[in-house]
Amino acid sequence: MASAEASSIAPTPLLKDELDIVIPTIRNLDFLEMWRPFFQPYHLIIVQDGDPSKVIKVPEGFDYELYNRNDINRILGPKASCISFKDSACRCFGYMVSKKKYIYTIDDDCFVAKDPSGKSINALEQHIKNLLCPSTPHFFNTLYDPYREGADFVRGYPFSLREGAKTAVSHGLWLNIPDYDAPTQLVKPRERNTRYVDMVLTIPKGTLFPMCGMNLAFDRELIGPAMYFGLMGDGQPIGRYDDMWAGWCVKVICDHLGLGVKTGLPYIWHSKASNPFVNLKKEYKGIFWQEEIIPFFQSAVLPKECTSVQQCYLELSKQVKEKLSKVDPYFDKLADAMVTWIDAWDELNAEAASAKLSNGKA
Amino acid sequence: MASAEASSIAPTPLLKDELDIVIPTIRNLDFLEMWRPFFQPYHLIIVQDGDPSKVIKVPEGFDYELYNRNDINRILGPKASCISFKDSACRCFGYMVSKKKYIYTIDDDCFVAKDPSGKSINALEQHIKNLLCPSTPHFFNTLYDPYREGADFVRGYPFSLREGAKTAVSHGLWLNIPDYDAPTQLVKPRERNTRYVDMVLTIPKGTLFPMCGMNLAFDRELIGPAMYFGLMGDGQPIGRYDDMWAGWCVKVICDHLGLGVKTGLPYIWHSKASNPFVNLKKEYKGIFWQEEIIPFFQSAVLPKECTSVQQCYLELSKQVKEKLSKVDPYFDKLADAMVTWIDAWDELNAEAASAKLSNGKA
Repeated sequence: MASAEASSIAPTPLLKDELDIVIPTIRNLDFLEMWRPFFQPYHLIIVQDGDPSKVIKVPEGFDYELYNRNDINRILGPKASCISFKDSACRCFGYMVSKKKYIYTIDDDCFVAKDPSGKSINALEQHIKNLLCPSTPHFFNTLYDPYREGADFVRGYPFSLREGAKTAVSHGLWLNIPDYDAPTQLVKPRERNTRYVDMVLTIPKGTLFPMCGMNLAFDRELIGPAMYFGLMGDGQPIGRYDDMWAGWCVKVICDHLGLGVKTGLPYIWHSKASNPFVNLKKEYKGIFWQEEIIPFFQSAVLPKECTSVQQCYLELSKQVKEKLSKVDPYFDKLADAMVTWIDAWDELNAEAASAKLSNGKA
Repeated sequence: MASAEASSIAPTPLLKDELDIVIPTIRNLDFLEMWRPFFQPYHLIIVQDGDPSKVIKVPEGFDYELYNRNDINRILGPKASCISFKDSACRCFGYMVSKKKYIYTIDDDCFVAKDPSGKSINALEQHIKNLLCPSTPHFFNTLYDPYREGADFVRGYPFSLREGAKTAVSHGLWLNIPDYDAPTQLVKPRERNTRYVDMVLTIPKGTLFPMCGMNLAFDRELIGPAMYFGLMGDGQPIGRYDDMWAGWCVKVICDHLGLGVKTGLPYIWHSKASNPFVNLKKEYKGIFWQEEIIPFFQSAVLPKECTSVQQCYLELSKQVKEKLSKVDPYFDKLADAMVTWIDAWDELNAEAASAKLSNGKA
């Protein structure tokens, strides 16, 4: 395994010029102080949610661009309708305007966690490791990530599959406050996640998972256009399903395109549980709807002709309209927003590409 | 989650009268000394491989029955042909003669491992926990086993799936010598597994895995007749694929019957790597064959009419004959042996059942 050997010896590259950190927020970004040693080399894209007249303070020394609702409306025009308002789902606007290959997104109530030896965890470094190293979606390895130092493929793992697949998504976890739904929060108000599981694994092909947007990295070139966080919050009948929606779409498309999705390390420290009563209100309809959404995604098949993420996503939007609109008219609206999102993505990214091109010529 | 709450509070039951430990061996069982505190309450089924005239010493105080080749031939008659000779695959004879609900099988070069705090790991206790607690094969939980103390289902996990599925198999892992194939052993002679991953997870429905027989527990009533370790060793063109074969069959049948397969904790300490040159000779054909076997099992579909493990297994034997015989005539023989195995299983277990019944009457 030449690639595994190499990745276990070489230091993890910073990817300073290839990665943006996207942060949705409604408040001053004091939490960045704690992340300074790890985040300062990177460019930040801050997506300000809520009242655009409010001034968000960013600690000194960080390189950032900030977009509020007025900016989003100005840049996208009528297509801004696909970006949620008063919900952290707005973060996906940051994915769209980024010009980098990789994205890391983190919530502003997430802090640096410590590993069992007491060392501060550089979450971003682990995400980069995960993204640069192949995935194994086609067969399960009982020692988990076979590319990690000290591990490999076990006996019985087919040799033809050991090259692995490209990794599109790295889903990190949370110590302290676990990512529970409102009913579980209500039932177990004092539960804390204290278990550090020293492991990264590929979620097998054909298996869906609940993707949390709190601590998430992905390869924008491989899967970016599918990372749409849907219509949530202001004017919508639902909230807190933004990342779930994205996760279901992303997984189906990754499976179709032969890309890998990893979960496990790195951990961040999730400081504060959101209010379970407010959450219940936001999640209420989703609790019912997900019972029909999951079987829909579990059985979704994309035609062979869909070879780009955009094609896959538009096909999925058609199937959403066809099969989920009967659950609630909301899905009809959502299917339209999925199309608008792709239009906006392509428009912005074509502009970026041609700007890059003319810069190159100049 | 009433069941989860209960399982996290109640101590793990011993299941003293419901579990047999099956050990294949060719030597004195000194390794049992180390396991005494954990194994002594249980009944052992020792399957002696190789020369039946050799006397195997078992440390005092253990309750056991021992079967050598002569015993197997006497008990099964011509059907003994389905039990491998000069290969640890012979262990499956022990599964067949057991009259208990649960089986734990362990290799005689496996010792008690220590957890990161230095405490000796009671592997059997963890297996019992795994088997008594549901699995989650239909959707992935990012905090792994949701029934474990301090864990639960995360946001976005459908509520209708939280009851889980019955657990049929608990696959444990190995510290020190990892279970590598001969090529990997040759390439990495000094690699040791030192990573204790504090986790149990369900292998999702539709995903195959390399099942190792070194440290394995299962519910004999739920999946026993599928735990056939195939034709290996003496007179056969292949070895070291016994547990793999069983794992592929078991997983396909568990998926069909809606049963769960878990992997992860507990660890045992695997003391000694087997000779990689000898292993290469045994594995040689398997390295090629598995490239066709895996796609066969990945695409195997069992008809709805198959509702018992036996029916599923016989159907699978037909498909093996039909689709794998072209790979090598060995699979034709193996498919026949699969049928013989089920015949022998049913015969022995019908006798046991009627003996039980007449005991009850007496």
